[in-house]
Amino acid sequence: MPSAHITFDQTGDKIAGRIRKMRPSAVRSLFAAAVRPDIISLSGGMPDVSLLPEESIRDATRAAIEDERAVALQYGGTDGRLETRQVVCGLMRDLGVRCKPDEVMLTTGAQSALDLIAKTFIDPGDIVLAEGPTYLGALQAFSAYEPDVRCIPFDDEGMRMDLLEAELERIGKGNPRLKFCYVIPNFQNPGGVTMVPERRKRLLELSHEYGFMVVEDDPYGRLRYDGGHMIPLKALDARVVYLGTISKIFAPGLRTGWIVAPKDVLARINLAKQGTDLCGSSFDQIVVEHYFTDTPWERTLQRFLSVYRERRDAMLGALDEFFPPEARWTHPEGGLFVWVTLPDYVDTGSMLGAALDAGVTYVPGDSFYPDGVTGRNCMRINFSYETPENIVEAVRRLAKVIEERLELYRVFIAAGAIKAPEEAEASENATACANSDGSAPVDQSR
Amino acid sequence: MPSAHITFDQTGDKIAGRIRKMRPSAVRSLFAAAVRPDIISLSGGMPDVSLLPEESIRDATRAAIEDERAVALQYGGTDGRLETRQVVCGLMRDLGVRCKPDEVMLTTGAQSALDLIAKTFIDPGDIVLAEGPTYLGALQAFSAYEPDVRCIPFDDEGMRMDLLEAELERIGKGNPRLKFCYVIPNFQNPGGVTMVPERRKRLLELSHEYGFMVVEDDPYGRLRYDGGHMIPLKALDARVVYLGTISKIFAPGLRTGWIVAPKDVLARINLAKQGTDLCGSSFDQIVVEHYFTDTPWERTLQRFLSVYRERRDAMLGALDEFFPPEARWTHPEGGLFVWVTLPDYVDTGSMLGAALDAGVTYVPGDSFYPDGVTGRNCMRINFSYETPENIVEAVRRLAKVIEERLELYRVFIAAGAIKAPEEAEASENATACANSDGSAPVDQSR
Ligand SMILES: Cc1ncc(COP(=O)(O)O)c(C=O)c1O
Ligand SMILES: Cc1ncc(COP(=O)(O)O)c(C=O)c1O
Repeated sequence: MPSAHITFDQTGDKIAGRIRKMRPSAVRSLFAAAVRPDIISLSGGMPDVSLLPEESIRDATRAAIEDERAVALQYGGTDGRLETRQVVCGLMRDLGVRCKPDEVMLTTGAQSALDLIAKTFIDPGDIVLAEGPTYLGALQAFSAYEPDVRCIPFDDEGMRMDLLEAELERIGKGNPRLKFCYVIPNFQNPGGVTMVPERRKRLLELSHEYGFMVVEDDPYGRLRYDGGHMIPLKALDARVVYLGTISKIFAPGLRTGWIVAPKDVLARINLAKQGTDLCGSSFDQIVVEHYFTDTPWERTLQRFLSVYRERRDAMLGALDEFFPPEARWTHPEGGLFVWVTLPDYVDTGSMLGAALDAGVTYVPGDSFYPDGVTGRNCMRINFSYETPENIVEAVRRLAKVIEERLELYRVFIAAGAIKAPEEAEASENATACANSDGSAPVDQSR
Repeated sequence: MPSAHITFDQTGDKIAGRIRKMRPSAVRSLFAAAVRPDIISLSGGMPDVSLLPEESIRDATRAAIEDERAVALQYGGTDGRLETRQVVCGLMRDLGVRCKPDEVMLTTGAQSALDLIAKTFIDPGDIVLAEGPTYLGALQAFSAYEPDVRCIPFDDEGMRMDLLEAELERIGKGNPRLKFCYVIPNFQNPGGVTMVPERRKRLLELSHEYGFMVVEDDPYGRLRYDGGHMIPLKALDARVVYLGTISKIFAPGLRTGWIVAPKDVLARINLAKQGTDLCGSSFDQIVVEHYFTDTPWERTLQRFLSVYRERRDAMLGALDEFFPPEARWTHPEGGLFVWVTLPDYVDTGSMLGAALDAGVTYVPGDSFYPDGVTGRNCMRINFSYETPENIVEAVRRLAKVIEERLELYRVFIAAGAIKAPEEAEASENATACANSDGSAPVDQSR
């Protein structure tokens, strides 16, 4: 190159503000480094696809390979294949939601639905309400559009409506910056908690009163191990934007999710989607269509449920048996995750190295908050992927790592260097899981 | 709802600025309305997937359904499956580009690569250079991030380097707002023209001199019907960000494209991708891997080439035979499209209704410019999808529609209401295909 040429670090110089602010996740790097075969992972959110019958996969893929090959291999419409959207309408009907195919858009997993909704609605600085903690992938999707995410704590009955109202008071009625409230009402990720019917009703009332949209993300609604089905927000209010996915009831590898929304909303999202991916995989959409029409998928789902129920029970049993008295955790009736809260002085991020050494992984709690600070004393542990035996062993290992930390702190406490947990509980909790208003946190343990 | 509640049009009120600016395409609506079976479409950009052998599809899908089922159905890595990235490295090697799997990221079609690159690099107001006209989908992808797209006209040797330099002079060296130049060097969409080697070299020199990235989009490089292969920009400069796709050499329904870029660039794009879709379809990536390893894909590509060559020849022949002397058009050596330029006083957008009535579709030229105005007297016509007989018939119909328009204008011209084309040519062309500097347009006809 002639020396007159400007030299520059193209990456550093050219990166957009939205990406410059994103930090590569330390956790991801740690996990990438940990490839020992004896490590038991409680950190993922993967379904156990080995439970899917061979025969079902063959039957589901047949049409894409034989009769409808030409369609399967060609570009499809931006909204997705009509027949697959019809199948989605059937799945929604089971949950109590009536919708027509033109109120359904297929997306590359619910993840891309989150991106499209953020792209369609969020201008930089706009306010988005969400549970805190909430789904890490939603925070990542939203953050590209630079919103001000306000987290509302939950308790065992879901998002706290009193705290939501207090936040809305501060925001004000009809505030044009307030765009939507993102909720995962069933077996929340990472919390495992479910929003009770009265709060669902109240959330919808507040949405009309204050003028915000409700985005209901429901990947886990069908993964219920005890108790009865709860009516989706979407069934109570036609304006709700509902997100579904096959990832936890069939196969995430086929990357098929959907948005159910009023037609005028979908028309706007369609504009965003054209530039994002033109259309989804026709092949995968045909496979999904046929999985839910040509195979005994409900029997397969029952199999998922009984396996996951057993694993959840193994995890809750092991937590009771091995975890120290200072720890609290949620008792999910479904889904894939338990949320554990440790004393405030434990930092689960810095503890992860020791856990890896002990042969177990989890996700540190601060990953699930937009500030990357709150939730440091918490962790998410998954029970869908490992065998009950492995889960028990993993919890045992984890308990030992935590116990060692607590020992260390007990020494400090004895020496008067930090406050004892009993004294600290009220105030320290408040900072650890605090909302922006410093409101008191919530006992997530039952 | 209690009457105290605020009523509002959620869609209208809540939409982000980037989407508010996008208009639903009038063309799309027109096409949606046109469902008559006798219409011959020259408007699409679809490969003819009926040319793919049944046996190849069966062989390519076998692994995903049998041996690697568990992987095919599960979440994959954000960058895509290693084995498929290795296959991409092989495909790139054929084109003269050496790369390693960790310099490759798989995307949901090249379309999503365009979105991810825009998301990673464009802040509102940043400058992006592109050919004018350029790929509509790229303009849609970029527009969500609100850049200032500057179009550089091309001639039969590709983007005009003199006009690019003039634009760069105005922008200035090392201007931090200048992010990248987006080019489709081979059989450009919609132009059909190919950038000659000297201009490729010059573009790279300018990129170093002025400090911008080069994004090379190459879906058509392998669809060459005459002449010899041209070395990709990526082979000449390792910093180039290269986009590839299987859409035109295999099957767009499997939505698999890729980015080849330096590792530091991919690391940033990876951050954007996590929030956009978590990962691509593992199933589709396995099918793609096996298509390019277990099937005689090069023989199948030869079949595509000979069929498309025949169709291109049919189109160019029919244009010569039927089109009026006032029309000019490009003579592509590959790809899928011919770009037609009519006299300035013809508006191909308003002519589309008459064309639909006559049973033929095309894409009006203004779709390919960010201002939605330039290119009004142009159109893109496709030759990959219809039979030679249909193509000839479609061009005949289209010629008649154009002829009627010209007749009308000839009457106006005779009456002195508008200038005769011969007088107007120089000045009117300049406005019709003008760059932002009003530079003279280019004869795209050979
Ligand atoms: C709450 C929530 N929403 C969305 C997703 C994304 O799912 P998909 O695989 O459909 O993209 C997940 C995945 O874990 C999730 O937990
Ligand atoms: C120039 C160009 N880039 C990218 C694309 C998108 O291709 P894909 O199907 O891989 O998303 C196209 C499709 O027509 C194209 O013409």
